[in-house]
Amino acid sequence: MTKEPPRKTIYRLSIYQRCLSRLRANSVDTVSSEALAKAAGVKPTQLRKDLAYFGQFGTRGIGYSVSMLSNFLDDVLGTTKLQPVILIGVGNLGAALLRYDGFRKEGFEITAAFDLAPESANARNVPFAIRAAKEMPVYVREHHVKMAILAIPSNSAQSVVNEAVDAGIQAILNFSPTVLQVPSHVIVNSVDLAVELENLSYFIR
Amino acid sequence: MTKEPPRKTIYRLSIYQRCLSRLRANSVDTVSSEALAKAAGVKPTQLRKDLAYFGQFGTRGIGYSVSMLSNFLDDVLGTTKLQPVILIGVGNLGAALLRYDGFRKEGFEITAAFDLAPESANARNVPFAIRAAKEMPVYVREHHVKMAILAIPSNSAQSVVNEAVDAGIQAILNFSPTVLQVPSHVIVNSVDLAVELENLSYFIR
Repeated sequence: MTKEPPRKTIYRLSIYQRCLSRLRANSVDTVSSEALAKAAGVKPTQLRKDLAYFGQFGTRGIGYSVSMLSNFLDDVLGTTKLQPVILIGVGNLGAALLRYDGFRKEGFEITAAFDLAPESANARNVPFAIRAAKEMPVYVREHHVKMAILAIPSNSAQSVVNEAVDAGIQAILNFSPTVLQVPSHVIVNSVDLAVELENLSYFIR
Repeated sequence: MTKEPPRKTIYRLSIYQRCLSRLRANSVDTVSSEALAKAAGVKPTQLRKDLAYFGQFGTRGIGYSVSMLSNFLDDVLGTTKLQPVILIGVGNLGAALLRYDGFRKEGFEITAAFDLAPESANARNVPFAIRAAKEMPVYVREHHVKMAILAIPSNSAQSVVNEAVDAGIQAILNFSPTVLQVPSHVIVNSVDLAVELENLSYFIR
């Protein structure tokens, strides 16, 4: 790796990886940079630039080996082994995430879920025993968990994040509609559904 | 407006707006650019630059009027009146979105939801009568709906999007893990949960 790739590049690697998986499932052996770029919704120059951060890939006139590039990206993205993730907050959205079967396929396993009211969360008919929120820090420490999905109301989000970070969480996928303050070694990706809709709304007028 | 603001700026306007709403709820009348920027997780220079696309705001030494700036952003973002949105796909995630009460608060109302199997979708105990997927294009035309939330499996996503766009949909919030091909007048914001997790996974190693 010559220099640090931008975050957008890392996002796109995931998308290339998803396209490659589909090609693999369809028994396609090689793919041109044009075809892969089109499937991923980017320009071929973008694809080549993104991959160039990590080395030399592809053969002129033939393209990329689907399996080689896919294995390489698995390695770069750290998705070769199942990564444990905890879920904090089992309301409507949290329960839907627990039922979602796409994470495991992509290399992530929700190994524990926590809620302030575990009994009522369990009543949501999730395939999982929900633990009490106060057990979270101990669980994170004992199982060396580094990733958390946060799906709790905004007003309690910051204090829960502080506890999680103190216990060892380094990466948070945040569904709470609030800006979290975290130390610099912790990374937060936020998915704010209302903000996404507002953004669309701006562009349709 | 002097020149077209970048998409990132529009995203941040939504976040500023959320912070302003909270200040308003707490009866705060004015806010400095430093305080508002901190709440939104950006640098004060970024905040000032973003707002400068839309005009002159704030008074030196006093800051921004919370209500004036908030009303102005409502206007810019098109959230002054309730925007109708349809939901396509009422599986686990779609059902959770229907139960989510945050959209309406932010100016969006899911006015109809569609599924290939409306009976089994209705059995998910959602506060809503689910319509058959084939009724979607007629509904979009009759009600002049411009926004859709897509929560269906990847393999059928593109053909459903084609139908929706033909019927008049101009903006799509896409939860299907696939890249959608749309005409240039249509905007797609994708929320791909597995890609978000992979992105985090890269950064914790």
